[in-house]
Amino acid sequence: MLKLAMIGSRGHFGYVISCLPGLSGKVEVIGISSGCEDPIDRLRDSLREIGISPAVYDDYHELLGLKPDMVVIDGPFEKHAVMAIEALKQGIHVFCEKPIALNLSDLDELTKVYRAGKAKMISMVGLRYDGAFACAKKLVDAGAIGKIKLVKTQKSYKLGVRPEFYKHRASYGGTIPWVGSHALDWIIYFTGSCPEKIWANQTREDNFGNGELEIAAQCQMVLKNGVMASASIDYLRPASAPTHGDDRIRLAGTQGVLEVSGGKVKLIDAEGERFVDVPECERELFSDFVFDVLGERKAWVDGEDTLNLTRACLLAQESADSGELVLWH
Amino acid sequence: MLKLAMIGSRGHFGYVISCLPGLSGKVEVIGISSGCEDPIDRLRDSLREIGISPAVYDDYHELLGLKPDMVVIDGPFEKHAVMAIEALKQGIHVFCEKPIALNLSDLDELTKVYRAGKAKMISMVGLRYDGAFACAKKLVDAGAIGKIKLVKTQKSYKLGVRPEFYKHRASYGGTIPWVGSHALDWIIYFTGSCPEKIWANQTREDNFGNGELEIAAQCQMVLKNGVMASASIDYLRPASAPTHGDDRIRLAGTQGVLEVSGGKVKLIDAEGERFVDVPECERELFSDFVFDVLGERKAWVDGEDTLNLTRACLLAQESADSGELVLWH
Repeated sequence: MLKLAMIGSRGHFGYVISCLPGLSGKVEVIGISSGCEDPIDRLRDSLREIGISPAVYDDYHELLGLKPDMVVIDGPFEKHAVMAIEALKQGIHVFCEKPIALNLSDLDELTKVYRAGKAKMISMVGLRYDGAFACAKKLVDAGAIGKIKLVKTQKSYKLGVRPEFYKHRASYGGTIPWVGSHALDWIIYFTGSCPEKIWANQTREDNFGNGELEIAAQCQMVLKNGVMASASIDYLRPASAPTHGDDRIRLAGTQGVLEVSGGKVKLIDAEGERFVDVPECERELFSDFVFDVLGERKAWVDGEDTLNLTRACLLAQESADSGELVLWH
Repeated sequence: MLKLAMIGSRGHFGYVISCLPGLSGKVEVIGISSGCEDPIDRLRDSLREIGISPAVYDDYHELLGLKPDMVVIDGPFEKHAVMAIEALKQGIHVFCEKPIALNLSDLDELTKVYRAGKAKMISMVGLRYDGAFACAKKLVDAGAIGKIKLVKTQKSYKLGVRPEFYKHRASYGGTIPWVGSHALDWIIYFTGSCPEKIWANQTREDNFGNGELEIAAQCQMVLKNGVMASASIDYLRPASAPTHGDDRIRLAGTQGVLEVSGGKVKLIDAEGERFVDVPECERELFSDFVFDVLGERKAWVDGEDTLNLTRACLLAQESADSGELVLWH
């Protein structure tokens, strides 16, 4: 039985909640903590709804002291790295909200600690596990579009009403790492490469009173394998739109063009243009990680992917902040 | 009666052919020339099909010497600028294939000559006159999406079999100016602004034996008015695709999102998401220019737009060639 600790509920801890019932007998939640001044209610109530009522710890250090096998980190964004480092140093596997670090010095430290130990670590790149994107990935890997030349991704969200911590760079981290991480993750995932050179832009103007939150951003990069890629990121999706997000990827290759948009997969190849049937994704993010930790199968994402994605996001943000081209470093 | 001379048939002289029948009584073709070693057949036969059989001149200088009021320039790409300059200096209005210059020194000279005279000049940005794009432009101008924050454009073409002159930078000019000019023109047209800073990438690898032709490119820019914009450009559309081109724009603003794709216009605003009825465009590129020259009405494009677009394309290409960020200059 894998002993699980859970810290915080600021982001996508729901990935864990939705998987826990299917993991009964394999995973036991041994305790929870909000990891900060946030009330514990959200996390505690979500667990209660699936019949789990673990002990609550005010101090997350105490919770880690119970020697869980794995910890879910979803506390304050600015504490992701320090909490992950603390857990990794104790050999605890880490399932962390993205971005796993808000700045490069935290990321460097995390990288060092992760590589020095044996504990596994991933961040919550749940959109690798979306049916349409998973289906598209399989097609691309099977050679459906030949050699990838050009990739475009899009994340467009409804702004809605954001908690106060989104309004400050120090506690939010920025729109490129937060919203854009998915867009950049698809680029890395589909191409199997990382950015060599990035130029990114962002703006806080017209952000509807959300302080330092960037309302929109764009990133363009050339990857180490020569593929050209770009990401369009915004909070400008109208409240009336049918879904919260408008997630897209377009891949143009030497033998075809493949797109995901609106949950559909469209392929144009030698046979013509058509929509491909999208089966439900056969894996889920959190349980995929659990099975990996248990040695049952390799997950679709690993620690190095997580470090690369976080670095790509932070370098894109460095470019947007400085206005300059940034080389991978 | 407006006396028209026509030089060459390498590009979109068809914009003129399709308008001439509707301009009878207003425009008279006084002579044609291929402007180079190309045979004259293509141009001559297209005119014959609409019942026009003008005199043929081997030497285009001789044709210009007949003092036409307007000249259509569609000869070798690398001669666009020198032919346009020659015409403008004689006070002849210029309707020229894009890009109107293949390098900045030609463009600088052209700019000087154009601004010093009274003759009008536009290049063939025919996609301002496409039904869906014209409809979208009116919606945006009427405030349908509020203040524009983010623009994405796409030009994706079938490669097909290209004439030899496409395979050499010197005679083709490059994929960013040739294919990308439409994508960059939409950005300039919809936002009413020009790039302040550009970073672009392009690749000749995997170009199916087309010499120096860039098979794909991407451009990202921040405009002088602060809008962020990008263009995705490729020749990777499979031969089996239902149409030659896949032209798109997506504009995200403070009050909505508007997209053109597949000839359709989709608007998401406070009322929700819907497709907008697209009427046929009420203007045509060439006749719009003729009416402007005749003083009947202002065209949707003018000489300064043409110079700005050409500069934007050449600066994007300068960036792609050098790998560096380029400031408007």
